[in-house]
Amino acid sequence: MFENKNKKTTSIEELGEFQLIEHLTKNFNLNNPSTLIGIGDDASVIDFKNSLSVVSTDLLIENIHFDLTYMPLKHLGYKAVVVNLSDIYSMNARPSQITVSLGISNRFSVEALEDFYEGVRLACLKYKIDLVGGDTTSSDKGLIISITAIGQLSKNKISRREGAIDNDLLVVSGDLGGAYSGLQILEREKAVFKVNPKNQPDLDAYSYSIGRQLKPEARKDVFELLDELKIVPKAMIDISDGLSSEVLHLCKSSRIGCNIFEDKIPIDPEVVKICDEFKINPLTAALNGGEDYELLMAISQSEYEKIKNHPYLTVIGHFTKNKSSAKLITSLNQEIEITAQGWNSISKSN
Amino acid sequence: MFENKNKKTTSIEELGEFQLIEHLTKNFNLNNPSTLIGIGDDASVIDFKNSLSVVSTDLLIENIHFDLTYMPLKHLGYKAVVVNLSDIYSMNARPSQITVSLGISNRFSVEALEDFYEGVRLACLKYKIDLVGGDTTSSDKGLIISITAIGQLSKNKISRREGAIDNDLLVVSGDLGGAYSGLQILEREKAVFKVNPKNQPDLDAYSYSIGRQLKPEARKDVFELLDELKIVPKAMIDISDGLSSEVLHLCKSSRIGCNIFEDKIPIDPEVVKICDEFKINPLTAALNGGEDYELLMAISQSEYEKIKNHPYLTVIGHFTKNKSSAKLITSLNQEIEITAQGWNSISKSN
Repeated sequence: MFENKNKKTTSIEELGEFQLIEHLTKNFNLNNPSTLIGIGDDASVIDFKNSLSVVSTDLLIENIHFDLTYMPLKHLGYKAVVVNLSDIYSMNARPSQITVSLGISNRFSVEALEDFYEGVRLACLKYKIDLVGGDTTSSDKGLIISITAIGQLSKNKISRREGAIDNDLLVVSGDLGGAYSGLQILEREKAVFKVNPKNQPDLDAYSYSIGRQLKPEARKDVFELLDELKIVPKAMIDISDGLSSEVLHLCKSSRIGCNIFEDKIPIDPEVVKICDEFKINPLTAALNGGEDYELLMAISQSEYEKIKNHPYLTVIGHFTKNKSSAKLITSLNQEIEITAQGWNSISKSN
Repeated sequence: MFENKNKKTTSIEELGEFQLIEHLTKNFNLNNPSTLIGIGDDASVIDFKNSLSVVSTDLLIENIHFDLTYMPLKHLGYKAVVVNLSDIYSMNARPSQITVSLGISNRFSVEALEDFYEGVRLACLKYKIDLVGGDTTSSDKGLIISITAIGQLSKNKISRREGAIDNDLLVVSGDLGGAYSGLQILEREKAVFKVNPKNQPDLDAYSYSIGRQLKPEARKDVFELLDELKIVPKAMIDISDGLSSEVLHLCKSSRIGCNIFEDKIPIDPEVVKICDEFKINPLTAALNGGEDYELLMAISQSEYEKIKNHPYLTVIGHFTKNKSSAKLITSLNQEIEITAQGWNSISKSN
């Protein structure tokens, strides 16, 4: 709804499959010495020498994972990459290569795909990763995106979901609930747009939250900070489905419980304001809203001095012996059992 | 159309996303010492020590790449893996891990997905590879499959698309046109089935070709033979889109031409018989029919003694200095320019 309708378009058939991928990837330069062979052969070749390689993959389907009504293709390309990189950082690894596969229907022009790849290219530049391959195919089912990210890791630095022990600090990066609030605003504007397509929304007051939804970042800076502080999180996960769901994953994998303190959960003032507008409890946005792509980790008590008051990190609780029991301690000191109510795309199936 | 309709079915919602993937992958054991962390964390971790890693990825979409009317899900799971492994072998590398992502609509039951994963598991066993991750999501668009395969490679053994030189032998494994003929038979039976669902087709006379279409194999045996014979192909590609298309890729990447001799192209007698029935030139099936997953390679003349008369390999021509000009020499000694008319899913877009 925000796009320029006057752009020249080229149909995909005019280019053909092999020319299309050559055309879309011609501005991608290689950033990593480990990338021996990139695009253009049957497979890419990566030379990791003495480190481990880490692999993560995601499948994104139009109208399930993204809505092109308010998601510009360039942002979508950027976000699709970032979401995968976030999984690599959450292993405490450095991403180095991605493959991007697209299923595209003929309602997309070459120019539209260029926008998507421009987003992919910007993410590659920002995160210093290489696009090394992929598959481009036709789809009679809208846009389908599959991305695989590969990263490197020193053996003694792995942070898995398991490994947290009693008394470890539960630490989160950034703040939570922003992407969810941004989505509420965008859904509202979409509804307004359907009624009155000429309405030009003023979204300035919501720019932080909308940015969190449309152009999220993976926490490369947190990964680098941890390295600098010589902290290896005992366990780590990225927050894609909401804090509740992710903390339960850590507890289940580590066979341990945790207490989270309500008043420690970092929430941006704009998110509180939007939640007020929509009559949602901001805590619900933080606990159950997904797509913040912050890192949630278990850090040993002995590291507390290194991280306290750091602007990137907030201690929101600690792990406990109570196996797989995660509790929220409210500001009135009530204990509430945390259950997973995160964003679950399977349950959205129709 | 060949399935048992009386099987018990469980809806995917009954299990939920996290349980679903645990359930579907519980019978997968790890086959490779390089697999440090498999399914169940944010990413898998692979330890390649001193070798290179090779990555290939494919996106398969229902009714574009496969038709569930005649493709049983178990075969589809097997084939989806094999297609990716073929790309790894075509780099002269040994596959070691795969990730499998699925987009599934709610017309698929848990039992149907079990069948798919049983096919994946059989391929993992046969090719000694590990399933290390993936993403499972809902789809309102039928079945979507994205597979990434990872392999290992010694530095001095890479076979790329480039590297063939004048006079190198053009060698193909197995025989060609089988998968295409099998598809003709299956499409014909589908049409018959639509008219008369009670008709039980007798497909025994076409079993080789139907097998090539429904349950292709990647040429692990050829990869191992080359290793045993100490032959590193100067260039190599797998035949997924038909001989014409693939030989042009080799010529273009190697900046060279080639001559292929019509009467040397290996075609199974059953394929000739089916082509007779359908009034297709068997040569057309071999040149333009895809999905045979044979290996096409450039081998130095000096290796001829090692490969001549080997049942896996056929010399079908040789490379020439004429840049990017591929010619078919007919049995009447006519020269015909080869053009790519392989299976192009982009041009099928609707």
